[in-house]
Amino acid sequence: MNENTQQLIAQLRSIVGDAGLVTAAEEQASYVKDWLNKWHGRVAVVVRPADTAQTAEVVRLCHRTHTPIVTQGGNTGMSGGATPDDSGAQVILSTTRMNRIRAVDPINNTMTVDAGVILAHAQDAARAAGRYFPLSLGAEGSCTIGGNLATNAGGIAVLRFGNMRELALGLEVVLPDGRIWNGLRGLRKDNTGYDLRDLFIGSEGSLGVITGAVLKLFSQPHARATAWVGCDSLAQLAELLARTRARCGDRLVAFEMMSAASLALVLQHVTDTRAPLAQPARYNALIELADTEDLGLQAMLEELLGQAMEDVLVNDAMLCTNGTQAAALWKIREGISQAQVRAGKLIKHDIALPISAIAEFVEQAERMIAACELQAEIINFGHLGDGNLHFNVMIPLSSSYEEVQQATLQLNRLVHDLVTEKQGSISAEHGVGQLRRDELRHYKSPLEMELMLRIKQAFDPNLIMNPGKLL
Amino acid sequence: MNENTQQLIAQLRSIVGDAGLVTAAEEQASYVKDWLNKWHGRVAVVVRPADTAQTAEVVRLCHRTHTPIVTQGGNTGMSGGATPDDSGAQVILSTTRMNRIRAVDPINNTMTVDAGVILAHAQDAARAAGRYFPLSLGAEGSCTIGGNLATNAGGIAVLRFGNMRELALGLEVVLPDGRIWNGLRGLRKDNTGYDLRDLFIGSEGSLGVITGAVLKLFSQPHARATAWVGCDSLAQLAELLARTRARCGDRLVAFEMMSAASLALVLQHVTDTRAPLAQPARYNALIELADTEDLGLQAMLEELLGQAMEDVLVNDAMLCTNGTQAAALWKIREGISQAQVRAGKLIKHDIALPISAIAEFVEQAERMIAACELQAEIINFGHLGDGNLHFNVMIPLSSSYEEVQQATLQLNRLVHDLVTEKQGSISAEHGVGQLRRDELRHYKSPLEMELMLRIKQAFDPNLIMNPGKLL
Repeated sequence: MNENTQQLIAQLRSIVGDAGLVTAAEEQASYVKDWLNKWHGRVAVVVRPADTAQTAEVVRLCHRTHTPIVTQGGNTGMSGGATPDDSGAQVILSTTRMNRIRAVDPINNTMTVDAGVILAHAQDAARAAGRYFPLSLGAEGSCTIGGNLATNAGGIAVLRFGNMRELALGLEVVLPDGRIWNGLRGLRKDNTGYDLRDLFIGSEGSLGVITGAVLKLFSQPHARATAWVGCDSLAQLAELLARTRARCGDRLVAFEMMSAASLALVLQHVTDTRAPLAQPARYNALIELADTEDLGLQAMLEELLGQAMEDVLVNDAMLCTNGTQAAALWKIREGISQAQVRAGKLIKHDIALPISAIAEFVEQAERMIAACELQAEIINFGHLGDGNLHFNVMIPLSSSYEEVQQATLQLNRLVHDLVTEKQGSISAEHGVGQLRRDELRHYKSPLEMELMLRIKQAFDPNLIMNPGKLL
Repeated sequence: MNENTQQLIAQLRSIVGDAGLVTAAEEQASYVKDWLNKWHGRVAVVVRPADTAQTAEVVRLCHRTHTPIVTQGGNTGMSGGATPDDSGAQVILSTTRMNRIRAVDPINNTMTVDAGVILAHAQDAARAAGRYFPLSLGAEGSCTIGGNLATNAGGIAVLRFGNMRELALGLEVVLPDGRIWNGLRGLRKDNTGYDLRDLFIGSEGSLGVITGAVLKLFSQPHARATAWVGCDSLAQLAELLARTRARCGDRLVAFEMMSAASLALVLQHVTDTRAPLAQPARYNALIELADTEDLGLQAMLEELLGQAMEDVLVNDAMLCTNGTQAAALWKIREGISQAQVRAGKLIKHDIALPISAIAEFVEQAERMIAACELQAEIINFGHLGDGNLHFNVMIPLSSSYEEVQQATLQLNRLVHDLVTEKQGSISAEHGVGQLRRDELRHYKSPLEMELMLRIKQAFDPNLIMNPGKLL
């Protein structure tokens, strides 16, 4: 450790105390790599401020000393956005000690929280006040609200409630020079100038450190109806989605798609799962309706699916009659990630498309991938209601590192070219981070890259906020 | 007309042709003043490009010649944001010839439109495709989608559907140097860098010219239930709102508030209106539920209000049994603007507050205004469900210009100080424009002003886009 680093640590200690520093290498281990064990780095130190004031002092010091900051929440990201580089010059600023629910206001339907609050705790706090915070995703037991904001997290309730962007009303942010922007507004309407809030949301730690947020709350759902359907084509599923929205309106909260291969993989690799339908279908969907009270939700879904079967839009359907059955269906949906890892090496794509373009996209992509002769299997699943596919390609577990790298380059180009042609997005909900930074540069228009760089320059002229990520 | 102006007009003519220019003073008259006849200006010329390419050429020319541009849609704004200054040096860029519905995609639930499309036409196009575009406001027969975006318009459906910001997925913008940013994405998820879209939305023409947009569509409502309630206090109304949301969830689409004075004013000045309740109440609310189909909407509202009366939260209620009755209630709500103008001179406030702070705010503001001894009457109404009050103060019609100016300064300071103390907004939905520019500077933190100016500088370094507005 050189003298500058020693001095930096001493100064940080004077701000956050011993409790706020992680200096031993073995204690830093869980911070400097991501949970997928895909990215690794080194840091000068991990600093864990106790509150916004300490965060501001830490950032001020880093600003003065030109020390790069990697802000980290629950460290559950998929794209390496919170992993430092391997220079040892960066500092991880962990928000995990800032974990207070600052206020819950059931009359205003808002909640003010520290950025380090774990998503599940935020959900609990809303529930305790008779309200509902709808963001929900696999990592909710570990990920933080700050991380959800920095990556504009999606998940399984976007169809009805939107991404994290739509769920936040106000932010508190420590700017790259250490000043605090208090934008903690709990207002549904506020037209007083440029939308700074939405600039920080989704900026992946590159414009400042989010330290607090005002979140929207909703009415608690007290009734649910869940079904599984099998179809021959994605065009049929898209048509069923449109019908379901038209008929059920806001009751539709999930419309999750799984290809036959995705389902087969789960049934093979995840214990206690069984096929929901007697005959396998090329495409499956898990459909869920919810409402504040039950005015015949089950009957509505039954009638809708009955009609769809009559119209030969759906081959078969299973309607859950209790929560246990619904949980079993969700277990299948949520088992895909785990099953994939066990079955092969993965080249992942997190793409979004206009829903009307999905069927054609998949058909073309499948044909082109088949032509690559890669021993590849396509594991296609995702949030059809949001147009978001996790269009993953699995190659044999025995593939070498080089083979994976080679296939990744080839398939990313193929898939992302086609996505771009269909006016889709190459990064729907997992963020850009390190994983898709080069892809972003490749596909964004030079004009849009220029505008983004001008914003970066305007906010962080010393480029100390999460360098090497996103841009 | 000086030589430079003549040359500019000649160059503009070569871009847009004669059909795209308004040069005669009498024809310019409706462009250079606002519809309230409150702001007046002069221009070198009004230019009306036919499409995005022409708009880009016009802006490129203005960029080269440092000609300031005031972009104008339907010219229905409340804050003078689209009225030029009186130098005669500015150019109005009217979007009204760009009025094509470019595409409607019912499967993706989106619609792509030119910026000059009139809001009502956009609503019609959605309806014709079996879908619903929810933005709704008084000027919908004249205002344009571009203006709605530039001001992040609100209106009567924000409670359920959000402001214009929440209703737009993608934008096409001509930047201040004339380059075209194509951000016309119809995606629900797209995390590929900074949120440029939301920077342009609400920027009041100061960062570029919005020429097109992708809008979200929703399911058509096929059932409605409407009621009028009278209460003793705003705290009771806020409690009723919270109960209604919890019980009815997304069915609640409007919760509009009117004070006794607002209602009395309408009954006095608007023909064919009558009091909905036998006994006048201190506060009234118009409540509307909507659903894609009728599963007992009326019964739900009846039960809710019956319980509220039992709990002495509501004094009296009138539940509409048909559309004619509902239309009569909406006529009262929408008659306030007209009634106010007939009854007195107005000092308007367009404020937002956390809903939980509204009752206390109004009580304190009323007390403080009474102490001013101004012969003032408070006309308090608005979108309670959004925390948005049009907290207007009426002084006698006979007041002189100087008296109005004097009262405006005094009351703005009083009301906006109190709004700021309660963490509200001094500009909820009508925009800043010229009207509240000085107020914005007075109340925004210097840090936030600095960040906004840095953004302005990054996008429009020559400061040609709508100078003198917003910032």
